[in-house]
Amino acid sequence: MRACIISIGEELLIGQTVNTNAAWIASSLNELGIETIEIIVITDKHGEILRALRECGERADIILITGGLGPTRDDVTKHALCDFFDSQLVIDQQILEDVLQYFKKLGRHVTDLNREQALVPDKAEALRNPYGTAPGLWFKEGEKIFVAMPGVPYEMKEMVKNQVFPRLRKLPRQQYIVHKSVLTQGIGESALADKISGWEDDLPKAIQLAYLPSMGIVKLRLTAKGQNKEQLEEDIANQISKLKTLIPEYIWGYDDDTLEKAVGVLLKSQNATLATAESCTGGHIAHIITSIPGSSAYFKGSIIAYSNDVKMQLLNVTANVLEDHGAVSEQVAIAMAQGVKNLIGSDYAIGITGIAGPDGGSAEKPVGTTWIAIAGKNKMVSRKYNFADNRERNIIRASRSALALLKTTVMTRLDLSPRA
Amino acid sequence: MRACIISIGEELLIGQTVNTNAAWIASSLNELGIETIEIIVITDKHGEILRALRECGERADIILITGGLGPTRDDVTKHALCDFFDSQLVIDQQILEDVLQYFKKLGRHVTDLNREQALVPDKAEALRNPYGTAPGLWFKEGEKIFVAMPGVPYEMKEMVKNQVFPRLRKLPRQQYIVHKSVLTQGIGESALADKISGWEDDLPKAIQLAYLPSMGIVKLRLTAKGQNKEQLEEDIANQISKLKTLIPEYIWGYDDDTLEKAVGVLLKSQNATLATAESCTGGHIAHIITSIPGSSAYFKGSIIAYSNDVKMQLLNVTANVLEDHGAVSEQVAIAMAQGVKNLIGSDYAIGITGIAGPDGGSAEKPVGTTWIAIAGKNKMVSRKYNFADNRERNIIRASRSALALLKTTVMTRLDLSPRA
Repeated sequence: MRACIISIGEELLIGQTVNTNAAWIASSLNELGIETIEIIVITDKHGEILRALRECGERADIILITGGLGPTRDDVTKHALCDFFDSQLVIDQQILEDVLQYFKKLGRHVTDLNREQALVPDKAEALRNPYGTAPGLWFKEGEKIFVAMPGVPYEMKEMVKNQVFPRLRKLPRQQYIVHKSVLTQGIGESALADKISGWEDDLPKAIQLAYLPSMGIVKLRLTAKGQNKEQLEEDIANQISKLKTLIPEYIWGYDDDTLEKAVGVLLKSQNATLATAESCTGGHIAHIITSIPGSSAYFKGSIIAYSNDVKMQLLNVTANVLEDHGAVSEQVAIAMAQGVKNLIGSDYAIGITGIAGPDGGSAEKPVGTTWIAIAGKNKMVSRKYNFADNRERNIIRASRSALALLKTTVMTRLDLSPRA
Repeated sequence: MRACIISIGEELLIGQTVNTNAAWIASSLNELGIETIEIIVITDKHGEILRALRECGERADIILITGGLGPTRDDVTKHALCDFFDSQLVIDQQILEDVLQYFKKLGRHVTDLNREQALVPDKAEALRNPYGTAPGLWFKEGEKIFVAMPGVPYEMKEMVKNQVFPRLRKLPRQQYIVHKSVLTQGIGESALADKISGWEDDLPKAIQLAYLPSMGIVKLRLTAKGQNKEQLEEDIANQISKLKTLIPEYIWGYDDDTLEKAVGVLLKSQNATLATAESCTGGHIAHIITSIPGSSAYFKGSIIAYSNDVKMQLLNVTANVLEDHGAVSEQVAIAMAQGVKNLIGSDYAIGITGIAGPDGGSAEKPVGTTWIAIAGKNKMVSRKYNFADNRERNIIRASRSALALLKTTVMTRLDLSPRA
C-alpha cells in the first residue's frame, strides 16, 4: 500500500513553519507497513488542492491531507473536497454537538462560523476532534482512501492515532517494512563505503542500504520489505551481525541512540561519575550530557575554562605548560582532564582544548585542531583531531568525538592498565 | 517569479528526517521576492525524479532540488538530471581540485568514489562546495532555472547564500518583498497581542503582521510587498517606530539578532567580563555565549555545578543555605552568582538553579521552577521563573531568560547602585 501526504498551508511555503506533521505521519505510516511515496506542500487554493487530489489519487492508495480546515474564509479545503467528490455539505449532528460542547467547556460564545464547522460533505464520514472544532473527513472511493485532517499538530496526531490508524489497520495488509539503523562515528562516508563494499554487494535484494552522514556521525539504514515480519527482522539482524565484524571500532549505537545517552547508560552501569573541563567546546559537552534526564546520577559538573587564567587557577595547568606547548596541545588537554578530575573528584574526566574558529588558527594549528584527553581511574588517553570546519560544527564534532573517545575508554577498560 | 522545491530522500519519506531544508529555502526565497508555489518530497528513484523535474518545470520558473548527490550508489539525482537535460558527465577540473584539497585538509585517503564527485553534466555549471565533496549543479533551459544541491543542511545553505542567491539576484525582478522582524522577550503572545491591538488595527493594508512565538521569544514579523523597495522599507520603519513607543521594555533586537549576540556586543562596549555558574542549564548558557566568534574577549568561563558537592566546594554555597532553602532557591542562585564572580574574577556573573525535569518537581516547586541571579559590580538582581515545560524547552527558556536579565541589568546599570 502506497500513501501520499498533502500538506496545505501558506505558512509552509514561506518557510515560517517546518513541516513536522508530514514527517510524523510518514514515520507512523511506515510502522503500519504503508510506504509514503510522496509529500506535497501546496497553498490553500481551490485549483491547487484539486490538482493535488487528482495527481495523488492516481499514484497512491491512501491520501492523507492536513491543514486548510479552519473556520475562516481562507480555508477552502472542505469546499475543494466537495467538488472533487461531487458532494454536498450537510450538518453532522454529532459534530455540531461536539462543537457546542467545546465552546461550553471554554466558556466562550459560539459564532455562526463555529457552527459551520459541523457542515460535512455527505459522502464523507466525519472524524471527531476532541481538541478542536474542525472534524476530520474520511472518504472511500473504490479502493482509494482520502482523509482530511486539521493542520494543528496535536489535533492531527490525536485523530491519526485514535481514528485513522484503527481504520487503516483493518485494511488487508500487503507488506511489512522493517528498518534498522547502525550508528557509526570516526570514519567518513566514502571511507566507510569502501570498507563495507563487499558486504554491501552481498546484501540480499530485499534489503536496501542508505548512508546518512551528519557532522562526524554516519548512520547506515537498512530497510527490508515483505510479507513475513519476523523473517525480515531476522534477515536484517543477520546482516548487522556481519557488519559488526567488519567495523566494530566505528559502531556505537542503533536507531535513536545518541552518544550522550550511550555514555550515560555505560557510566551508570559501572556506577561511575564524570566531570568535564572544556575550552573550545565552551560548555557544549556538559550541555548535551545534561540534556539526558537523570544525568545528575553520573555527571558531577564541569569547569568551562575559556580563559587561560581559569585554566591555571582552577585546573592547575601551569604557565610553563601553556607557554611551552600552547593552549591547544596534548599537554594542556591532559592537564585539564587531570585537573578537573582532582578538583571535582569524579571517576572519569574529559579535557578538551582546540581552535573553534573562525580566528585563532595558524599554519601549524589550523582552525579545527583539537586535543581531547580522557582521564580514567589509572590511565590517561589523549588524541588529536582536525575537524577543519566552521565554528558551530567544530564545536559539535569536537563534543561528539569527546563522547566517543570517553565511551571507548570506559568500554575497553583501558583505564585499568597503567599509563604507557 | 515562482519557485518549486524538490526534496529528494527516502529519510524524508519515512519520517526519519524533518524537512527543515525546504522551510529554510522557502523562507530565503521569500526574502528575494520569489514565491514558492510547491514543495515536493520524493524518493531517490530515477523515474520519480524525472517526473518531478517535468512537472515542476511546467509550473515554476525556478526549481531548486536538494539531496541525492552523495558519492554512494543510492544517490541517483545526477544521473536523472543528465537524462532530463540530455547531458553527459565530464570531469570538472576545478571541482576535482576542490575534492582533492578537501581530503588533503582532512588528512584522509581519496577514493575513486570521491573522485567521481567531480563528474558534472556538461550542460550544467558546477557550484563549488567548500564544506563537502558534492558540487551543486546550475542548469538554465530557456527562461527556466534548475539548481541541484547537496541535502546536507550546512553544505546546502552555504551554496544557496554564496552562489545560488547572488545569481538569482541578477535576474529581472517583478516585485519586492520586504520583511522586518521585531524580537521581544518576557511577554506571552496573547498579552502582547492585547497590548498592541490598536497599533495592529491601524496598520496599512500593504503591511502584514505575523506573530511567531518560540520558547520565551515572540517575533513580530512585518511584511510588505510592492514595486518600490525604498517606500516599503520606509513604511515598515515608521510602523516599528510606533511599536517601540508601545512596548519598549520587551523589544531586544531585530531580524537575526540573538540574545547571546546582543549580550556580547553590550559587554564588549563596556569592556566588561562575564562568568556563569549553572546548575539546571548544565552548560547551555556557556555554550550559547561561546557560540559567538570572539566571545573569549568577554567570557572568562563557567562552573557547571550539577551536584551539590560542586556548589559547596567551588562556589561556596553553604550546607546551611542548601538545607534551609533547597538547591532551587533565590539564596542558592545568589550564592552561585557571587561564588563564581569571586572565583573567576569577572565583572558580571550569572547564577542559575532550577528543576529542568522530568523528575524532581514538587507541589511547591514544580518542574520548570527556576531562580536566576545576576551579580554586577555593586548589585545583585534575582528573579523567579516558572517555565512549566519539558526538559529541553525548560533549559532553553531558562538560558534565554538569564541572558535577557543580564542584558537588562547591564543596560540599566542597575549594578551601579548599591544593593537594596
